[in-house]
Amino acid sequence: MTAIDAVLARIDQNRDAALARLLGLLAIPSVSTDPAYADDCARAGQWLVDELSGLGFEASLRATAGHPMVVAKVKSKRRDVPHVLFYGHYDVQPADPLELWETDPFKPHLSDDGQRIVGRGSADDKGQLMTFVEACRAFREGGDWPCDITILFEGEEETGSPSLPAFLAANAQELAADLMLVCDTNMWNKDTPAITTMLRGLVLEEIVVHGASRDLHSGMFGGPAINPIHVIARMIADIHDGRGRVALPNFYDGVEELPEDVAEQWHKLDFNERDFLGSVGLSVAAGEQDRSVLEKIWSRPTCDVNGIFGGYTGKGSKTVLPAQASVKFSFRLVGSQDPDKVLASFRDFVRARTPAGCRVDFLSHGASPALVLPFSSEALGRARRALHAEWGREPVLSGSGGSIPIVGLFKKDLGMDALMIGFGLDDDRIHSPNEKYEVSSFHKGARSWARVLDALAG
Amino acid sequence: MTAIDAVLARIDQNRDAALARLLGLLAIPSVSTDPAYADDCARAGQWLVDELSGLGFEASLRATAGHPMVVAKVKSKRRDVPHVLFYGHYDVQPADPLELWETDPFKPHLSDDGQRIVGRGSADDKGQLMTFVEACRAFREGGDWPCDITILFEGEEETGSPSLPAFLAANAQELAADLMLVCDTNMWNKDTPAITTMLRGLVLEEIVVHGASRDLHSGMFGGPAINPIHVIARMIADIHDGRGRVALPNFYDGVEELPEDVAEQWHKLDFNERDFLGSVGLSVAAGEQDRSVLEKIWSRPTCDVNGIFGGYTGKGSKTVLPAQASVKFSFRLVGSQDPDKVLASFRDFVRARTPAGCRVDFLSHGASPALVLPFSSEALGRARRALHAEWGREPVLSGSGGSIPIVGLFKKDLGMDALMIGFGLDDDRIHSPNEKYEVSSFHKGARSWARVLDALAG
Repeated sequence: MTAIDAVLARIDQNRDAALARLLGLLAIPSVSTDPAYADDCARAGQWLVDELSGLGFEASLRATAGHPMVVAKVKSKRRDVPHVLFYGHYDVQPADPLELWETDPFKPHLSDDGQRIVGRGSADDKGQLMTFVEACRAFREGGDWPCDITILFEGEEETGSPSLPAFLAANAQELAADLMLVCDTNMWNKDTPAITTMLRGLVLEEIVVHGASRDLHSGMFGGPAINPIHVIARMIADIHDGRGRVALPNFYDGVEELPEDVAEQWHKLDFNERDFLGSVGLSVAAGEQDRSVLEKIWSRPTCDVNGIFGGYTGKGSKTVLPAQASVKFSFRLVGSQDPDKVLASFRDFVRARTPAGCRVDFLSHGASPALVLPFSSEALGRARRALHAEWGREPVLSGSGGSIPIVGLFKKDLGMDALMIGFGLDDDRIHSPNEKYEVSSFHKGARSWARVLDALAG
Repeated sequence: MTAIDAVLARIDQNRDAALARLLGLLAIPSVSTDPAYADDCARAGQWLVDELSGLGFEASLRATAGHPMVVAKVKSKRRDVPHVLFYGHYDVQPADPLELWETDPFKPHLSDDGQRIVGRGSADDKGQLMTFVEACRAFREGGDWPCDITILFEGEEETGSPSLPAFLAANAQELAADLMLVCDTNMWNKDTPAITTMLRGLVLEEIVVHGASRDLHSGMFGGPAINPIHVIARMIADIHDGRGRVALPNFYDGVEELPEDVAEQWHKLDFNERDFLGSVGLSVAAGEQDRSVLEKIWSRPTCDVNGIFGGYTGKGSKTVLPAQASVKFSFRLVGSQDPDKVLASFRDFVRARTPAGCRVDFLSHGASPALVLPFSSEALGRARRALHAEWGREPVLSGSGGSIPIVGLFKKDLGMDALMIGFGLDDDRIHSPNEKYEVSSFHKGARSWARVLDALAG
């Protein structure tokens, strides 16, 4: 029996005890957004500190302006092993609407068939973070750690992590590691693991176009007076070309094609575009021609208008020619697109379409680059092989259309790439009544982390 | 002394008594929008009935669901004279904000230099309607009427004339005449009279474009999911061509060029486009190339968006991809443009730009044709000569960019063209504190109507 086989065997032996521990954590209603549960949040943090201390971690609860952080550290006896920072969050969403729960959200239990763990936080994120803790336990019982491991659990993820930036800044040196590990994402399906290697970046920019000094009567002034709504409509219409591509100069600088094996993998996935669109009432895909839906949301940049406003928008009509109109643009970025350059190109584009006599105001609402774990990364290759060994299937290298702000924060402040491996499923009902987590996700998740840590150690 | 000279001489002799009468009418606070003044409205109506009865009119106050109508009639002893219907309104705007009035709005008086009548309603519309009544008085004292005359004064113009349509329908035969006369418009300037011969029509149409069945996360769906804001922006951008013309097929059917003399007159008017635009903070004229500002607002059709709405429009950003977006279009029509055909062409245009998988709803908010008194009209020619005789200047044949719904109603229900001659000035501050009417407008206005009635009789 190899070392890793012994670790996996212990995880199997611990299965029921591990489930019991998770139920204990789930019973603590650590709802971060509601001050009434502040003590419960602290209690959940302390529960984890105790658990990790019991495993030999140097663990402590750290006060913040909000709910406390859990920080825990161990070092391998071996030298030249990688140092990983594992991130998770112990806070949960409120359980409302309570009446839609079939059982008490904070009386967690296994479903009758023993297949699912039911309760608030089971999938998001207590069940997921405990897969890593259980993997650690199995190594601990073997006498050594495969890597140097730092763990950071926060209690404010569901409220936008308000205390995290200051905490990272104040503890940058302590938290620095070679690689970040995150367990807060999904599998492709129940039998197929996934590694999220691409998070799209985001540039948010609002523009306000001003024409006349006041709203005008469209009868008295319609014709000679410029209409700011027409001006912004022209900008929106011009920003995509006839093939659905973003028409800003140099916009696609830094956007690269997928490696052949990944393109091939995506092409073969059992993803039904018609069903995906149909689930939200759409029948025809928009966007870039000759790109699949998965490419469009995972690996291609986009521009969308998120809001537009001008003139009279109540019931009926009003013959007004408005003094101003506003529009909120957003750009999703991929690869190495530079948010500053995209923003500069956009502003030039807008200025070039602002007629003489009009004025434009720019309001920035944030800009962040895409986060990409290079396909050539050694860590990614090891994780792929480890997950393949556990699940008997090649893990899907997926993207995520949206941003995960925390990952960007770690990248920006601590310079760390993130390996995002999660075992959630699309039907886990996170943030909704009757949240659940598959027992197979929990158990094989722990085995997966054991394999990944072993693989990273080389 | 010709007959008309004698009439004009009597108007001159009556000048001070006429001013006193007008002050009496202005002292009645006939604010139509405020129920507290309902009795005052009725009192103003009765004041006019008494006045007209005293002049020999068969006059009566007619109840409506709102404030009463004044209807008065006389017939000339001569045969084959035209029958005119004069329209005015005795109701006034509220006086608020009271603190900005230098004197009590309902204690009307002459300014110290004797040049201006000050008080709520002095210009809009009591002073104007009394110019016609005083002209009638001067004819009455001469022993005959130049035309058959019906007078209709309403008391709800400032609240949108809610009772007028039903009243016209119920009394169509009684009110039918050859020509409608209206005194509720302005002169070109203090020394130059004007006849408004063109009122632009209006088509109001709102569209709502529906994409997905619910709002989507722009990260998760941005790219493959159609964005209804982009769809409406394309429609707005496409509706004007590069020369500022409306790009709907057949839109310009029924739009004619001005007669040469009118074009020449407009060209020579002391109208400063720079000042006109500058007064509302604009520096460059928009709209059709190679058209003057006066053409654009008086005699050219336009399309404007009066309102647009979609997605998130609060502060900051929200990465939403909205399920729908809406836009309120309006078209100003001129000449014989057909509102129904314009609407049909617009809807085809919208449908052609609604992508597969989207749905569009149309909401109509009204459609009315332009109202044009043909330049070749005999009555117009006579009125032009009459005003020229009074003022020593050719009257400006002006247009009005906005609609005057009442005139459209008379045209639609009673088939009458309207001769709109008014003596207001741009600085009369109607609807605002310290409303005034020039004594010269009042006095020469009465003389003008005497000349116009005389001229119409031939």
